Amino acid sequence: MKNKTSDLRIFDRILPAGMYSTEIEDLICYGYDASGHSGVPLAVVWPENTQNVSDIMEIAYKNDLKIVPRGAGSGMTGGSVPASPSIIISMERMNKILEIDTANMTALVQPGVINGHLQRELKELGYFYPPDPASMEFCTIGGNVAENAGGPSALKYGVTKDYVLAIEAVLADGSVINTGVKTAKGVVGYDLTSLLVGSEGTLALFTKIRLRIMRSPEKTVTMMALFENIGDAGNAITEIMTSGILPRNLEIMDRTTISAINSFKPSTLPNNVDAALLIELDSSPETIKRESKEIAHICAEYKGNINIARNPTEQAELWTARRSISPALYRINHDKINEDIVVPITMMTKMLLKLKELSHKTGITIASFGHAGDGNIHVNVMPDKSKKGDMEIGESLVKEIFQITLDMGGTISGEHGIGMTKSKYIGMEIEAPVLDIMRGIKKLMDHKNLINPGKIFPS
Amino acid sequence: MKNKTSDLRIFDRILPAGMYSTEIEDLICYGYDASGHSGVPLAVVWPENTQNVSDIMEIAYKNDLKIVPRGAGSGMTGGSVPASPSIIISMERMNKILEIDTANMTALVQPGVINGHLQRELKELGYFYPPDPASMEFCTIGGNVAENAGGPSALKYGVTKDYVLAIEAVLADGSVINTGVKTAKGVVGYDLTSLLVGSEGTLALFTKIRLRIMRSPEKTVTMMALFENIGDAGNAITEIMTSGILPRNLEIMDRTTISAINSFKPSTLPNNVDAALLIELDSSPETIKRESKEIAHICAEYKGNINIARNPTEQAELWTARRSISPALYRINHDKINEDIVVPITMMTKMLLKLKELSHKTGITIASFGHAGDGNIHVNVMPDKSKKGDMEIGESLVKEIFQITLDMGGTISGEHGIGMTKSKYIGMEIEAPVLDIMRGIKKLMDHKNLINPGKIFPS
Repeated sequence: MKNKTSDLRIFDRILPAGMYSTEIEDLICYGYDASGHSGVPLAVVWPENTQNVSDIMEIAYKNDLKIVPRGAGSGMTGGSVPASPSIIISMERMNKILEIDTANMTALVQPGVINGHLQRELKELGYFYPPDPASMEFCTIGGNVAENAGGPSALKYGVTKDYVLAIEAVLADGSVINTGVKTAKGVVGYDLTSLLVGSEGTLALFTKIRLRIMRSPEKTVTMMALFENIGDAGNAITEIMTSGILPRNLEIMDRTTISAINSFKPSTLPNNVDAALLIELDSSPETIKRESKEIAHICAEYKGNINIARNPTEQAELWTARRSISPALYRINHDKINEDIVVPITMMTKMLLKLKELSHKTGITIASFGHAGDGNIHVNVMPDKSKKGDMEIGESLVKEIFQITLDMGGTISGEHGIGMTKSKYIGMEIEAPVLDIMRGIKKLMDHKNLINPGKIFPS
Repeated sequence: MKNKTSDLRIFDRILPAGMYSTEIEDLICYGYDASGHSGVPLAVVWPENTQNVSDIMEIAYKNDLKIVPRGAGSGMTGGSVPASPSIIISMERMNKILEIDTANMTALVQPGVINGHLQRELKELGYFYPPDPASMEFCTIGGNVAENAGGPSALKYGVTKDYVLAIEAVLADGSVINTGVKTAKGVVGYDLTSLLVGSEGTLALFTKIRLRIMRSPEKTVTMMALFENIGDAGNAITEIMTSGILPRNLEIMDRTTISAINSFKPSTLPNNVDAALLIELDSSPETIKRESKEIAHICAEYKGNINIARNPTEQAELWTARRSISPALYRINHDKINEDIVVPITMMTKMLLKLKELSHKTGITIASFGHAGDGNIHVNVMPDKSKKGDMEIGESLVKEIFQITLDMGGTISGEHGIGMTKSKYIGMEIEAPVLDIMRGIKKLMDHKNLINPGKIFPS
């Protein structure tokens, strides 16, 4: 396998000027993601249409050049970081919403469209696209599809895979394929669309994505419930989720998370609570009224103190606090290990208490927050790099948390995927013969192992 | 490839008595399905647990014996009919509901569990499993998963793939694998669960299936709207589906269908209408009240005459009529060709009128009914076998309908799959390179082509 910079000159001949760079400033800027991992690519290309992507892939294929597709670099597991010398294919110029078909409730977008941009366009028309990752203001739909992104609203509305109807993709050799349907249903052949969703950029590059969209709910109500004991919050979560009410969002923030938020930017959250639940309902006004009462009743039963946002400003304040968690935690610890385990909802209390206990036992700060209604906890293990041995304890703590999660019937990733950072753990969850099938699919679609190599599978 | 009956004696040595038969009565009974196609298998086996399935598959693998998995034989495309000399693996004895976990809203079932049986067990607990194919009283969950079955409630709740969380499956060589998660979310590795769903029994045999279940809705209301012109009904469908209301069901029956129902078993449907819509809402009582009014208003706008079922008896009467369509049409024409196209919802009127026009033009009866809200129309082309050339005209009519469907942005199958009957048409919808990837996946998982050969892919 050759990967010499001299091979890259071919891009200059094929691609229009300005679509390709080997400047060191560009290479550095496109070599990292939100995982904190980084690598220096050989070059960065910015295709503008499907043909460009196809041409780039064909050249890469013929010259055995590795490529890494990249959305906004907001991924948490190094998915868009080059694991070996590679060309970064940045999708940022393919950022057009090609069609919004409200009557058939679909939208056709290029992969570089920012999630929040699509949300705003749809909102004006009275529609929405449910997947709403915390990074929605900068993450791209292409990246969301590659990672099968979730977000708070996944609780009621499901994750990205539930909204991808069809994909136009470029294969390793540059050929262009189309999967899926434009209609509500379709069962012709194997479901390659679902196979591409969540494939972490390792099977093909997406160039067009048809999404299912929904009518905006009539009304939303946002509530915050505060608990003096995180175990009580866990019990309230389980009870809400088994009450028959399906909130749009049910988010948890623990004491460490709340204090990080408040030192980042003061919020309306008090520091002296052990856990806060952010609960949002969306429905018809009459249903919301009844369900809000029921939720307040459940929270009160577990000594939770509930406040309902009285106006859009208060609603926005609650969400600003929630959405600032990632930068807030990053500021207090650059070396935090951010995981996103999922446990069955009946295990929530046990897991939250276990995390508290593990933090006490090891002396390593753990901040837990996330999509509580889904059982999806973002566990941020925060070792102190300056303390000798702390990073190693942190790493072994992560492994221990994964094992506890699996023993509870959970999964080691609900949203972030495996990427580079978790490939060493994938064998804890996926048995060898299943991993072999996955490797077989990878080989079938990318026999030269040129598309985002070094991801998902342990080397 | 050998497939001699003498090889089968090995089953006698390995399997308990009564688990295996080569009696001609059994072979005939297990060689057909609802498509009308049939073939005589070499043997029938009735495994009782995962180990039995694994043993059978291992023997078949070592002896190059083809196998065909079978649920209840209610499939519409010959999926469980042997295309070549094969062993039928009937899942009917693996019919246990292994667990219903209401708190975590999942159920673990064996593949031979009847859909309706699961529905009744869940109903008693206040839960339901949304996929509800017309054949729900006899079809199996394993078959539903193999075909990615839908049903009327798919409109609001999605299809089988939206409810399959995890699968225990036996591979071609007899090894047992597990895919998926028990939790609400999970993104570890490629989504093999979605790949297995809808694979039409060609990739692996399912031995356990974990399903997501839901809380039963508080209330349902069932309505019937009658139209003197099917075009008006089509317009009402499009308007309801773009109104922001999402009914649980929105079913259409055309004039031919209604008259077939009434000659099968008299119903409350009048014969002198061009189309009837069966509309069901499920929600909170207060929301249903408002939405029913809106739907009545929309139907009235298109000259539809609406009746709301006043009690559970009337509600059941409407559903009895709907669920008797298949046998009713079968009685008037054994040779009907039953297709299940899907068009974008804005194309409904155009497609319904086109079908009427094609029937007039060719003189061949076409009965159309189905899941109108999804754009999913069960088109029953009914040539008269006794008339010379009618079957050929019927076949070419089907092909013409498929082409019109695809030109409208639709798909040739929303629920039934490809099986044997539609493999010759798959190339109309799926482009060659995509079909190559599907064939590659088939080869990867079944390199000897022993699992349900002769299905999906054109020979």
